[in-house]
Amino acid sequence: MARQLRLGAFMRPTTIHTGAWRYPGAWPDANFNFEHLKRLAQTLERGRFDAFFMADHLAVLNMPIDALKRSHTVTSFDPLTLLPALATVTQHLGLIATGSTTYDLPYHVARKFSSLDHISGGRAGWNIVTTSNPDAAANFGHDEHMEHDERYVRAREFYDVVTGLWDSWADDAFIRDVDGGIYFDPAKLHVLDHKGKYLSVRGPLNIARPVQGWPVIVQAGASEAGRQLAAETAEVIFGAAPNLSEGQRFYADVKGRMERLGRDRDHMKILPAAFVVVGDTVEQARAKRAHLDSLVHYESAIASLSVWLGHDASGFDPDAPLPEIPLTNQSRSAQERVIALARRDNLTVRQLAQRLGGYAGLAFVGTPQTIADEMAEWLETEASDGFNIMFPYVPEGLDDFVDKVVPELQRRGLFRRAYEGKTLRENLGLPRPDNRFFA
Amino acid sequence: MARQLRLGAFMRPTTIHTGAWRYPGAWPDANFNFEHLKRLAQTLERGRFDAFFMADHLAVLNMPIDALKRSHTVTSFDPLTLLPALATVTQHLGLIATGSTTYDLPYHVARKFSSLDHISGGRAGWNIVTTSNPDAAANFGHDEHMEHDERYVRAREFYDVVTGLWDSWADDAFIRDVDGGIYFDPAKLHVLDHKGKYLSVRGPLNIARPVQGWPVIVQAGASEAGRQLAAETAEVIFGAAPNLSEGQRFYADVKGRMERLGRDRDHMKILPAAFVVVGDTVEQARAKRAHLDSLVHYESAIASLSVWLGHDASGFDPDAPLPEIPLTNQSRSAQERVIALARRDNLTVRQLAQRLGGYAGLAFVGTPQTIADEMAEWLETEASDGFNIMFPYVPEGLDDFVDKVVPELQRRGLFRRAYEGKTLRENLGLPRPDNRFFA
Repeated sequence: MARQLRLGAFMRPTTIHTGAWRYPGAWPDANFNFEHLKRLAQTLERGRFDAFFMADHLAVLNMPIDALKRSHTVTSFDPLTLLPALATVTQHLGLIATGSTTYDLPYHVARKFSSLDHISGGRAGWNIVTTSNPDAAANFGHDEHMEHDERYVRAREFYDVVTGLWDSWADDAFIRDVDGGIYFDPAKLHVLDHKGKYLSVRGPLNIARPVQGWPVIVQAGASEAGRQLAAETAEVIFGAAPNLSEGQRFYADVKGRMERLGRDRDHMKILPAAFVVVGDTVEQARAKRAHLDSLVHYESAIASLSVWLGHDASGFDPDAPLPEIPLTNQSRSAQERVIALARRDNLTVRQLAQRLGGYAGLAFVGTPQTIADEMAEWLETEASDGFNIMFPYVPEGLDDFVDKVVPELQRRGLFRRAYEGKTLRENLGLPRPDNRFFA
Repeated sequence: MARQLRLGAFMRPTTIHTGAWRYPGAWPDANFNFEHLKRLAQTLERGRFDAFFMADHLAVLNMPIDALKRSHTVTSFDPLTLLPALATVTQHLGLIATGSTTYDLPYHVARKFSSLDHISGGRAGWNIVTTSNPDAAANFGHDEHMEHDERYVRAREFYDVVTGLWDSWADDAFIRDVDGGIYFDPAKLHVLDHKGKYLSVRGPLNIARPVQGWPVIVQAGASEAGRQLAAETAEVIFGAAPNLSEGQRFYADVKGRMERLGRDRDHMKILPAAFVVVGDTVEQARAKRAHLDSLVHYESAIASLSVWLGHDASGFDPDAPLPEIPLTNQSRSAQERVIALARRDNLTVRQLAQRLGGYAGLAFVGTPQTIADEMAEWLETEASDGFNIMFPYVPEGLDDFVDKVVPELQRRGLFRRAYEGKTLRENLGLPRPDNRFFA
C-alpha cells in the first residue's frame, strides 16, 4: 500500500481567512456557534479526517482596533470546553486542543486532557504551545513575557510533569473488587513528587491513566529550540512550510533529529498547514479565491502589505501593479517573496494586499485532481506526511473538500476509506506509550 | 402558588456514600463512566432537577492508603471537561462546576465558564471554592496552604476579576455586519485592566458575554468569612445544616446579611445537602440504609468513629452498644451528636461507625410521603429553599427519587412539572446581572 496521507482540520478559527465570514453563503458566526461546529465536525468525520485541531490564543488578538473590529476570530470557545462537547457528537474524529506551558498549570492540563481522552474513548491530542503572544502575559499577571529559550526549557519540564502525572496509575490499577471492597491496587499508584527549576508538583493525578496511555503530543515550534523539543517529544507537527522545497528541508531536519535521538521516524507525522480552495476548474477555484480576497478590508490589508515590504504602501495606486521599491537588507527575503507572488499571479496592489491580509501561506487552489496531484507530490517527496487543512470559508469550503477532494484521494489509494482503529493514536499509526513507572 | 423547592443533584461523586459502589445493582464505576453519567443526567432532567452539581478536589483525597484503596471517588472527571459533554445530551438541566480561586487562574476560569454557558445555552453555574485541602497546594507548587482568611480576600478579588472579564463585551457588541465588514462595535468593548493585591489581569476576555450575563454564582462557605462572601456574591448556597433548627439559623443569618447589604433575599437559594433513601415503607428505607452502611469497611469506619469521639474506639465490642466514654471539652459537641445518634437509632458500635463512615449529615430516610413532609417543613419554616440531593447509590437511588419522590412533590404543588425557562437563572428565578460597564 502507498504511504497514506494524514489529514487534520485547522478549526480555530474555523477559517483563518479574514474575509471568510463575509463570503456568500458563509456562516458569519461559525467560529462561535456550537450547532455549526457540530455540523462541521460531523462532516469532517464523514470525510475520515484524523482530527479536529484547535489553535488558541490567550488574549484578544493584538491588532489596531480598526482591523480588530473586522475580525471574526475575536470571540471563540475555549478548546478544552468545546472539544468534550464535540466528543459526544462524533465517534472517530481526533480532538486536538492547544494548551500553554507558560500560562497554565500542569496539574490542570494533565487532568483535563486525561478527562477528554476518557470521555472521547481515546481521541484526545495536546498541542503544546509556549505562547509567544505578549498580550497573553498581561492576562496572567506577568509584567513581561518570558524569554524565548527560557519558555522552551519550561515547556520541556512541563511536558515531563504532565506525562508523569498521566502515568500516576498503572493501566490496570482499578480492580473494583465489589466483594472484597477493594477499589484499586495500592501497588499500582505512583506519587510523582516532582521538584524542578520551574515546577513543583506532588501528584498523583486524581484520574485513571488516559485511554491512549497519553493523549497524542502535537507541536508547531519552528525555531531551533522548537524543532529540538518536537524531535524529542512530538508525535504530530503542525508545520508551516510555505512551499515544497522548504517542506522537504524541514521534514529532513526534524526526522533526522529524531533518528539521532533514537526515535523511529514513523512515530511522528509532519502536517503542514495547507489552505485549500476547490473548483470545478482551476480558473473557477482561482476566481473563488480572488472573490474571497476581495472581502478583506483594504485599509487593514494595505497595513499588512507595508509590514511585508518594510515600506509604506499606503500611497501606492491600488489598481496598478506593484511599483519598484528599494530592497532593504532587513526584510529582503519577505520582500522578494511578496514581489515574486505579485508577478506570478499578476496581482494589482489591492489584490496583493488582500491576498496577504487573507492568507499568505501554502495554498492548493484548483480542482480535486490538481489538489490531489500536489498533495501526492508532498507525500512522495518527503515534504510531509499529510496536511492540516485550512478551509477558505465554511460550510461550503469544508464540504467541497470532503465531498470532492477526499474521494479523489481515496481513489488514488492515498487516504483511508474507513478508520483503522478506535483511538487517534491507532488512526495515526502511533504506538501507545509505556507507563514509565509500571512495566 | 406555594413556595417552590429548588433541587440540585450532588453528582461528584455520584454518591458520597463510601459503601455505595458495592450496593447490589449499583454501578461500581459510576463516578468515572461517561455513558452512566449521561444516563443519570438525563434522568435528572426527566425529574426536572434544577442542576447537576459537581463538587471537586484538586488532589487524590488525603486518607491512609488502607482507607483510600476502598474509595470509589479516587478517579473522576474534571468538572469543566465533563459538563460540556453533558450539555450536549441534555436541554434544560443546569450544569454547576466547582472552580478554585486559590489554585486556578481567573482568565481561564472566566473563559471556560463562559464557554460552557454558551455551549449549553445558558445553563452554567460556578461553584466558587477557596480549596481548603492542603494536599491541593502540593499539586500547584505551593509549599504551604494559604491561610483561611487570606484565601477569602483573594476569593473576593478573583470573583471581581472573573465577573469583570465576563462584562468585557456588551450583550449586543457582535453586530456581524457582512456588507459593511464590521464584526463588532468597538464602543462595546471594555478593557478591565485590573491590578489588585493578588491578581493582575488586563483583559478583555476573548469570548462574548455569557448567555446568562454571568453563570450562576454558587458557594458553600460556612465560616464567618464564607458567609459574608456568600451574602455579598452568591446566588445559590450549597449548605450543610445537619438538622432543621441549624438550617433555620443559617438561613436567617445569611438572608439577614443579604438584606443588610441591600440585596433581595429571593436572589439567593439556600440548598442544604440532603441524603435521601426511598422505600415503600419507612422500615424498608431504613433497612436499605442499614445494608448500605454495612458495606463500609469496618477498619476505616472505626477510625472515623475514633475521630468523632476524640477517643480510640478500636477496642470497643463491635456488636455491643456504644459504651460510656469520658466527655472532653475539645470535641464535646461532636461527641454529644454521635452519642445522641447511637441512642436514637439504637445502633451497635459497628453500625454507628459505618453510619459515620458512610454519610453522617442530614438524611431523609422514608417513604415518598415522609420525605415530602420533611422537605415541605424545611421549605415552610425557612430552613431552606430546596436541597442539594445526595443519592445513596446509583442508578437505583437516583431513579427512586425521580420516579417516586418528585411526583409526590409535584402533587403537593411544591415542585415544577415543567421547566419555567431556558436558562438555569430563569429556572431558579434569579435576575440576569447588568453589565457593569454598559447600560
